[in-house]
Amino acid sequence: MNNQPITCSTSRIAGCTFAIYPMTDQFVDVITASLKEVDTSKVWMKTTDVETCVRGRISHVFDVTKALFLHAANTGHHVVFSSTYSIGCPGDSDGDVYLSEDDERLNTKLLKRMSQEVAGKFSLYPLGGGNYMNMIYNQIEEMKLHGIDVSSIHYATRLDGDGEKVFDGLERVFTNMENLKSSHTVMTTTISANSPSKKEKINE
Amino acid sequence: MNNQPITCSTSRIAGCTFAIYPMTDQFVDVITASLKEVDTSKVWMKTTDVETCVRGRISHVFDVTKALFLHAANTGHHVVFSSTYSIGCPGDSDGDVYLSEDDERLNTKLLKRMSQEVAGKFSLYPLGGGNYMNMIYNQIEEMKLHGIDVSSIHYATRLDGDGEKVFDGLERVFTNMENLKSSHTVMTTTISANSPSKKEKINE
Repeated sequence: MNNQPITCSTSRIAGCTFAIYPMTDQFVDVITASLKEVDTSKVWMKTTDVETCVRGRISHVFDVTKALFLHAANTGHHVVFSSTYSIGCPGDSDGDVYLSEDDERLNTKLLKRMSQEVAGKFSLYPLGGGNYMNMIYNQIEEMKLHGIDVSSIHYATRLDGDGEKVFDGLERVFTNMENLKSSHTVMTTTISANSPSKKEKINE
Repeated sequence: MNNQPITCSTSRIAGCTFAIYPMTDQFVDVITASLKEVDTSKVWMKTTDVETCVRGRISHVFDVTKALFLHAANTGHHVVFSSTYSIGCPGDSDGDVYLSEDDERLNTKLLKRMSQEVAGKFSLYPLGGGNYMNMIYNQIEEMKLHGIDVSSIHYATRLDGDGEKVFDGLERVFTNMENLKSSHTVMTTTISANSPSKKEKINE
């Protein structure tokens, strides 16, 4: 916490529940190393046997999740990040105090050391309104502006390219929804790195 | 395909995009063995480097995803299933021909040989309407009728218990939404088996 002015576009708390799956016998070490290297001090955080939840300002929620995944992927193992980002879910307040953090990101230096191609997908769920499909289509167009490959798949939109750019696109879409005053936005993502079956369709 | 009467409550095609993450160096073998043992002939199916998509009648979509995950978990490795079930998504039709299958499940015998405790979560997203939170709360109550532990967590509902019962509860909730005429329903799940950090809160 500090006394710097709040510059974020929203005063609502964002959150992400996620898990990182390293497909290796050393999966515990990969996750533990990520948690040690990444600075999570500007988010509320809780880990259980099923998932980790981080909550705070949009900027820090994305900074932390991006850094944790890309650090794990940097080990070279096949690693998958599966997440649900959410804002505006009625009735919860744990971690609201983290909204008074400033927007200076804590893991920029760590991320600069990494370069990682990823393949993934995202789905956007604007809840509570009837015009949701147009909101989704508009944000798929937004995603195409971030220097990554964007294509249609069942129930989601596929994303291929540089890991940082993929996360930056996801953050932009999520922030756009907040600026558009979507009352409750959920965005799910799956992002894979170092897959041995990269770009191949195994079974059609 | 066959000529038996259609008894399913819906003529709309359901689908599930999912992945199974075995946290072991033998992850390819675990997945390949599951795909070999489970009968997927009543669903449309496509696997890429990021995920597998199955589409068909609700009964078979759940039969196949349940059997694939529980077979993988039966290896004893720490295995996680991450999925998005969907029905009513505007504008897609691949695999519609599979709706003419009957409701006889193909993996009942295989599932009878397995007993697996799991820990997981689900979130329900009824899209397009303003009354969605009540629909969600009602289906969380439904889940409590299936002999598993149901508890609140951020952005989701936690489920602990027998793997088959967890999947049966998920199928019931998803089918209920269809019977309630929800125009577009999405349900996400994460289900974990054999976690070394079972039931422990690693970091608060």
